[in-house]
Amino acid sequence: MTLYLVGLGLGDEKGLTLAGLAAARACSAVYLETYTSVTPSRQALETLLGRAVIPANRKLVEQDAESTLLAAAKSGDCCLLVPGDPLAATTHIDLLHRARELRIPIRIIHNASIMTAVAETGLQPYKFGKTGSIPFPAPGYEPETPYDLLKENQKLGAHTLFLLDLKPEEGRYMPIPDAIRILLKLELRRNEKAFTPAGPAKALAKENFGPPPHCLIVPGKLHFIEEETLAFWQ
Amino acid sequence: MTLYLVGLGLGDEKGLTLAGLAAARACSAVYLETYTSVTPSRQALETLLGRAVIPANRKLVEQDAESTLLAAAKSGDCCLLVPGDPLAATTHIDLLHRARELRIPIRIIHNASIMTAVAETGLQPYKFGKTGSIPFPAPGYEPETPYDLLKENQKLGAHTLFLLDLKPEEGRYMPIPDAIRILLKLELRRNEKAFTPAGPAKALAKENFGPPPHCLIVPGKLHFIEEETLAFWQ
Repeated sequence: MTLYLVGLGLGDEKGLTLAGLAAARACSAVYLETYTSVTPSRQALETLLGRAVIPANRKLVEQDAESTLLAAAKSGDCCLLVPGDPLAATTHIDLLHRARELRIPIRIIHNASIMTAVAETGLQPYKFGKTGSIPFPAPGYEPETPYDLLKENQKLGAHTLFLLDLKPEEGRYMPIPDAIRILLKLELRRNEKAFTPAGPAKALAKENFGPPPHCLIVPGKLHFIEEETLAFWQ
Repeated sequence: MTLYLVGLGLGDEKGLTLAGLAAARACSAVYLETYTSVTPSRQALETLLGRAVIPANRKLVEQDAESTLLAAAKSGDCCLLVPGDPLAATTHIDLLHRARELRIPIRIIHNASIMTAVAETGLQPYKFGKTGSIPFPAPGYEPETPYDLLKENQKLGAHTLFLLDLKPEEGRYMPIPDAIRILLKLELRRNEKAFTPAGPAKALAKENFGPPPHCLIVPGKLHFIEEETLAFWQ
């Protein structure tokens, strides 16, 4: 039958599209991917869909897909609900490969993603460069890749969106101040003036940004309309 | 009251989210933005919403907003339905500025956009650089900006998404072969090896890509998983 990857968008269960709702209601098994971002509550989804929703952690989706999602999609239609767009910030490409190997048809139902919703800041989405991520540091693991990516984008005057690491199942979400501190630390080490502590970054490092998930945008070269729109937030 | 900008996503009226549907049903005036991309049929939307949907062309949204959308949002809630995400490929930022000047609250209901749905190709969305557009050429108007943008992205190994020009109200949509010919012409003029006619581009220029709207992606440096996923399409 068919494997549906259905985006949940960015908010609660009302972010689901009518097409996504219809697909999920018609499937014989519905899973909720719980490890790449914050999801609507499983109970609210069950009420909306009128059926059981099975939580799917990383192990289920990545290691045990054959005996769960893909087995369900062999015998009936199976739906995996994914926060945001099902292929954007998190690309479930490996799952698509496995489904394809098993000749299971795939249908993607797209939805809103942080990668385009950033436009709400007033920064023009087509002026963003490559998207980065900032992983939780660990002893012996403090990668410089976010700094390299920022420098590359800055060469083009492009804005940079950083997705901040999260482990929803452990209740761990990197807040913006931590991300700023990580970038400031990389700046100290590299000293290439990509992320300077002057003014904004220093002040922001003390703010409270509300509930997670968080992301951090480092603006590139600003068009005057972008500057005007950003001023909405001051 | 409130001005709602509600995304329609990428398909028919079933691309609307439950939140978007509820907002549009509760507004006293509902407009459909008809000039930036293909929209679901107005009749289908009227059936779904159970109310009149007023077509909104560029003149209405850009010049006459004060006497239409914003007047409606002064006296009641007003909704503008926008194809894709309401702020992504087309940024209705000017409208937000005007609403703000009139102290009209704004609510954005995001939805799927071509800017993230490109992930369906197998190319990783976070490896895209700045987004470009290819305008219809006109006598004396053959801008080199798409070529410049492509070169910049290529320096980073980033993929490039080109949105192809369209004038839905005139039934004009740039097809992929025309976009390829425009880029090949720019390559001939500039000769900087950003877009070469070897193999793929030449073959694609003869394909039929189905109904519009179209976009064109020029891949940058490919990760092997991207190569494997792209092979799905061969």
